Amino acid sequence: MNTYKSYTERAKQHPNACARSLFELMERKQSNLSVAVDVTTKKELIAIANAVGPFVCVLKTHIDIVEDFDMDLVQQLESLAKKHDFLIFEDRKFADIGNTVKHQYANGVYKIASWSHITNAHTVPGEGIIKGLAEVGLPLGRGLLLLAEMSSKGALTKGSYTTESVEMARRNKDFVFGFIAQHKMNQFDDEDFVVMSPGVGLDVKGDGLGQQYRTPREVIVESGGDIIIVGRGIYGNPDQVEAQAKRYRQAGWDAYLERLSIHQSA
Amino acid sequence: MNTYKSYTERAKQHPNACARSLFELMERKQSNLSVAVDVTTKKELIAIANAVGPFVCVLKTHIDIVEDFDMDLVQQLESLAKKHDFLIFEDRKFADIGNTVKHQYANGVYKIASWSHITNAHTVPGEGIIKGLAEVGLPLGRGLLLLAEMSSKGALTKGSYTTESVEMARRNKDFVFGFIAQHKMNQFDDEDFVVMSPGVGLDVKGDGLGQQYRTPREVIVESGGDIIIVGRGIYGNPDQVEAQAKRYRQAGWDAYLERLSIHQSA
Repeated sequence: MNTYKSYTERAKQHPNACARSLFELMERKQSNLSVAVDVTTKKELIAIANAVGPFVCVLKTHIDIVEDFDMDLVQQLESLAKKHDFLIFEDRKFADIGNTVKHQYANGVYKIASWSHITNAHTVPGEGIIKGLAEVGLPLGRGLLLLAEMSSKGALTKGSYTTESVEMARRNKDFVFGFIAQHKMNQFDDEDFVVMSPGVGLDVKGDGLGQQYRTPREVIVESGGDIIIVGRGIYGNPDQVEAQAKRYRQAGWDAYLERLSIHQSA
Repeated sequence: MNTYKSYTERAKQHPNACARSLFELMERKQSNLSVAVDVTTKKELIAIANAVGPFVCVLKTHIDIVEDFDMDLVQQLESLAKKHDFLIFEDRKFADIGNTVKHQYANGVYKIASWSHITNAHTVPGEGIIKGLAEVGLPLGRGLLLLAEMSSKGALTKGSYTTESVEMARRNKDFVFGFIAQHKMNQFDDEDFVVMSPGVGLDVKGDGLGQQYRTPREVIVESGGDIIIVGRGIYGNPDQVEAQAKRYRQAGWDAYLERLSIHQSA
């Protein structure tokens, strides 16, 4: 089961270029931490990206909540990604038919495909959404994550919804390299989907709008996730951003080492 | 069954202000036609909105595919909505947790809540998405549609997904007044959800990226939809925009009259 191998081993054998560079940088930086930066100004976004940059493998953005977005913001994010060695993941949650998402991904004000290494999509519209995004993203070497499970209360990502999403991923491995999910998605020896898990917190249990939290250990060791996504737990207190990023990186990495040790001795 | 009553009757008794004004203007303009304007320049969007304006009840936009979006575009759309008497429906397909969609709806570059009378959301994240959007939209008198069914090939909006979406709508009738769906959603005498149905075409059957088409008669008479959404069928040929808008309005209205006559005589 690829889930239980080291990130280095998985990097060596992964067919998807985006996944390979991700696994390599995770090992290089000893980080399976992604910070979800949900702030509404360019200044805050850049400040947080710069502060957490050294500790993350992926910086997750919601570019469409930034009031003063412009292409200079994108250029600054790209510079920080190079400087600190992380990938950018615009959490757009595409959810329309193929012909529409093509334009939303490539064009418009944000031109997401031009700067975001990773993006994601809901499978609810059917497989056409993957085909539409792949037309834009594949030639640019981008990677797509599918939403197979959500951590929010009452989410409908369950049963056949999840099963069919995994089937769609299997049929589109050239572009889809993993999932936003709460558990490992690998079932066969020849597959290696990267699982990024949101809703991770060490101090809180919910936000009053349906979000629910789990610890890094629960996600990595117990559920087989690969990357923990942490939001306000890291940047909620402006004085502690760097300290919290270090703390979560350590918690995530320790959980990964524990998982490795369990499965190496097994 | 409210589905089979006249739009005027439904306007009189509907608890939701957004739905009331929609039904009233549908009867006033004798139109159950919504045009989906999927173009990538401000100039095209304004030109089409102006050409189809007299014939539609709702203008559906994908504001995030417009390359040269600015607030002047919004102001022009608002002027056209007043001049031609239609509502604006930004087809954003929100699909994130409550705390994120709040910002995506109110803030960012687009400030959708400030100008779009109607928007829509996927139910896949659970009921928190409705709560988050309602915090922003209710005080502004906006209305929300849920995606209970999609017309694209292999869509996962089926079975318990649809059932649970309808339950969410029932629990949030102050804000949710209808669905994007392929069939009527009303089951009880005291409910009156407005159903807008995409994927309507008189001449074509598919677009190669998973979209499938039905006729206005199939949607309104056979399936109990209330508003037909037509896209490239109307603006695909620049010389025929007005003629096609008239043609589809007539087809939609004839279907509505046929439905009325069937159920009045029944």
